[in-house]
Amino acid sequence: MLVSEYFSNLGNDYAQVVPLTVFVAVLCLCLIIGHLLEENRWVNESITAILTGCLAGAIILVLSKGKNSHILTFNEELFFIYLLPPIIFNAGFQVKKKHFFQNFLTIMLFGVVGVFISLIIITAGSWWLFPKLGFVGLTARDYLALGTIFSSTDTVCTLQVLHQDETPLLYSLVFGEGVVNDATTVVLFNTIQKLDVSRLDSRTILPVVGDFFYLFLTSTALGVVAGLVTAYVLKTLYFGRHSSVREISLMVLMAYFSYMLAELLQLSGILTVFFCGILMSHYAWHNVSESSRITTRHVFATMSFIAETFIFLYVGMDALDIEMWRVTKLSFGTSMGIYSTLILLILLGRAAFVFPLSTLSNYMNRKAERTPVITFKHQLIIWWAGLMRGAVSIALAFKQFTYSGVTSDPINATMITDTIIVVLFSTLVFGFLTKPLIRYLLPHQETIKISRRESVPPKEDLDVPLLSLEESVGTNMSRAKDSLSRLIESPVCIIHFYWRKFDDAYMRPIFGGPVSTPMDC
Amino acid sequence: MLVSEYFSNLGNDYAQVVPLTVFVAVLCLCLIIGHLLEENRWVNESITAILTGCLAGAIILVLSKGKNSHILTFNEELFFIYLLPPIIFNAGFQVKKKHFFQNFLTIMLFGVVGVFISLIIITAGSWWLFPKLGFVGLTARDYLALGTIFSSTDTVCTLQVLHQDETPLLYSLVFGEGVVNDATTVVLFNTIQKLDVSRLDSRTILPVVGDFFYLFLTSTALGVVAGLVTAYVLKTLYFGRHSSVREISLMVLMAYFSYMLAELLQLSGILTVFFCGILMSHYAWHNVSESSRITTRHVFATMSFIAETFIFLYVGMDALDIEMWRVTKLSFGTSMGIYSTLILLILLGRAAFVFPLSTLSNYMNRKAERTPVITFKHQLIIWWAGLMRGAVSIALAFKQFTYSGVTSDPINATMITDTIIVVLFSTLVFGFLTKPLIRYLLPHQETIKISRRESVPPKEDLDVPLLSLEESVGTNMSRAKDSLSRLIESPVCIIHFYWRKFDDAYMRPIFGGPVSTPMDC
Repeated sequence: MLVSEYFSNLGNDYAQVVPLTVFVAVLCLCLIIGHLLEENRWVNESITAILTGCLAGAIILVLSKGKNSHILTFNEELFFIYLLPPIIFNAGFQVKKKHFFQNFLTIMLFGVVGVFISLIIITAGSWWLFPKLGFVGLTARDYLALGTIFSSTDTVCTLQVLHQDETPLLYSLVFGEGVVNDATTVVLFNTIQKLDVSRLDSRTILPVVGDFFYLFLTSTALGVVAGLVTAYVLKTLYFGRHSSVREISLMVLMAYFSYMLAELLQLSGILTVFFCGILMSHYAWHNVSESSRITTRHVFATMSFIAETFIFLYVGMDALDIEMWRVTKLSFGTSMGIYSTLILLILLGRAAFVFPLSTLSNYMNRKAERTPVITFKHQLIIWWAGLMRGAVSIALAFKQFTYSGVTSDPINATMITDTIIVVLFSTLVFGFLTKPLIRYLLPHQETIKISRRESVPPKEDLDVPLLSLEESVGTNMSRAKDSLSRLIESPVCIIHFYWRKFDDAYMRPIFGGPVSTPMDC
Repeated sequence: MLVSEYFSNLGNDYAQVVPLTVFVAVLCLCLIIGHLLEENRWVNESITAILTGCLAGAIILVLSKGKNSHILTFNEELFFIYLLPPIIFNAGFQVKKKHFFQNFLTIMLFGVVGVFISLIIITAGSWWLFPKLGFVGLTARDYLALGTIFSSTDTVCTLQVLHQDETPLLYSLVFGEGVVNDATTVVLFNTIQKLDVSRLDSRTILPVVGDFFYLFLTSTALGVVAGLVTAYVLKTLYFGRHSSVREISLMVLMAYFSYMLAELLQLSGILTVFFCGILMSHYAWHNVSESSRITTRHVFATMSFIAETFIFLYVGMDALDIEMWRVTKLSFGTSMGIYSTLILLILLGRAAFVFPLSTLSNYMNRKAERTPVITFKHQLIIWWAGLMRGAVSIALAFKQFTYSGVTSDPINATMITDTIIVVLFSTLVFGFLTKPLIRYLLPHQETIKISRRESVPPKEDLDVPLLSLEESVGTNMSRAKDSLSRLIESPVCIIHFYWRKFDDAYMRPIFGGPVSTPMDC
């Protein structure tokens, strides 16, 4: 008897009760295991969640006597509407804006140009190699989709390994790239779906690029507007006088609204909600009461954490999708060939842009004294940390190769199982080696991290300001005199300087937040 | 062209994007209007939400040219699985346990015996009066269901008018009754669905009562166990050392898990999650870090607030359900007759138990010096505050009279529209008059409330202890010497005394929380 049948025999009315109960229980379990393994030097949260998911899937498979391993079929709607927004919003809300904008150019190079390079290599490589392995039947659009799917890095997993305070440069680069990458791949994927692949020349490519930049700018603008409106409403009405509940609700709802509106208008919700998060932490967060500040900060992190764990659990459970495996009709050798090819192409595609673009970035920033150089060790870590593929890949694969999560076509089923295998392999193997790699390449940061963790009592965490823009007020004053000469050295610094002036003179008084010291760069 | 068609022509992939976007936008609007009207002496949050919902429904109706007023059909699953649990959990988490347990007997009288009395009066009354109005076709089970549906009070709306600090007795009575009432009606409703109504005598009634008490006890036990497990895990593993995110996640997930498990086991999830909330605030809350305490307190309140507003918006939007109104085939006179009859029966049914049971409660507590007497003014307010009918009524009506929110039977459609009208009328009219009534009957509390609001700065709110058990530590010492003599006077006090001793000696050391002064009653 199927497990689900057994439970439905219990007589409950709602179809979702059983899967939800199981999922919540497994989530709790996962959380506790993740906590117990936190000090472990190999395992990270994603790996824990994926393995717990696999285990839960296996148990359900055994209980249902080999018929069914997952109780919820993969649902892109669930993923894109409910799970992704909190993760990206929290990323924008918690990011240290100073580092992010200091490295803006490099991040854009990695996140936009990098994805195009990776897409070309993976598409061309698979187009050339798949037929040689005896795997045919994919259309030109499928190959292009494949390139996009496997160019999408998994930010979530990476962030669990890198830490904002220890390696600020690496963190901001990898994280910033991840967000831009998310947006780029989703936008590119949608563009490819609409593309007329039969007539692919320079005249059809140009509008695609134009379309892409249009989406990029409008999505960002929408996020900025949503953030500013929230800040203005919070400042004008001053909710805190009566209830912090309303303040928190308004921030959560407006963030979600910006995402949904972007999706409705066919923009990139990811970019929108990311910039909404940045604007909210820059302005809106300063207009709420003390308790709301503490609460929002923790609540966004918690929502993001639950969504991430949920996604990885899901991926783990999905790996044992028996139906999908049955539909696939490839021999073991061919399958292994495809997996190896894809992983090789991912390694190559990423190397092909990380090292050249880093050098380019270093060359561009050679005059800026305070913009740190990306050393070769850093480049290695950036390359490695972005190799993991995650839930975005799976969601896009399901979108391209299935109809509502189901497919009966062997080729499509193969592509789904391939994606799952690549995601599992990259998260488990690459993820497993990331912590040791960072420790090996940057041994200094690791020791700082350990001593910091042990010495700082958890309570102090409470009052640490969220925003790094304000963090160096004290030290800035002493540096003020030599900063004018530095301003001339770097264009980024000049932009930053004028933005600061504008921010203090016009934005802060309207939208809230403390006025910063003007001479910091 | 339908609005939904227009939006789907925009080409988005997901069916839920449009309704969700509209809903979130209307929620934001509602929140701001609610804030602006807060100082108003008539309107409360529920009324604002219902009216905003009606307005939004009307706009959609006009935009869709009279075809459709709501973009989401009413879904009991959404209500019972996602919206109700946070409301009830928050209620348990924030309730002042001292008052709740002090008045436990009275609350149980109102919440259990009261519902039975009200059920009998409404069922008998409608059975007798409906045929006289020319409305026939309801079965015996329908009449019984009707009695249950209209015996369910709406706690949410009431709590927005009464305040815990100003009228502790009234608040604990009305609120406590509301929670027990919620549980009783849902359990009774499910029992009636299974009942063989053709053979209704004393021998079939007794098992129903037994069943009811069995459900009551097992549901409570499940909630208590879930709360204790959470407290124990939090105390043993001490998550706070590393991340408050895990602590908050665990509390949220365990609370939700207890609800879902209760639903899965056919128990009353409402009771379970309520007691889980009480236990969590009594033990688990003390085991987490300072920032997690502030966060959880605000987060549960926020979730509850959003869910409540969502429900009232929904009810408002649902009122203009054109399809349902078309199916109904009654004349205007008959409809008005039915509405008036139902409202009259609700007024009668509630009066029939509030006044006698209050007198009974006063008689039982006559020897207990410190248990306050329920004066006639209090009784009037209790009677009035419980007249509002809310989302539980609507959810049960949809469960009884529709199949997945749709019905083509005129009689069933009439029952749905009747329920909506009664809910709207009671919330708007009775709700509208509650604030002035309380101000008229208890003028003193009102002035305290106003002065308190104006003088206390919002920041102090941050550190007010959540739990009232600890609140009177200072004053208790002076009363310690005469409390032994008082112990003998009241059985509630004796139970409380021994529970305190047991709690301090065994429970607190295992599950966490500060040890209280032993002699307080």
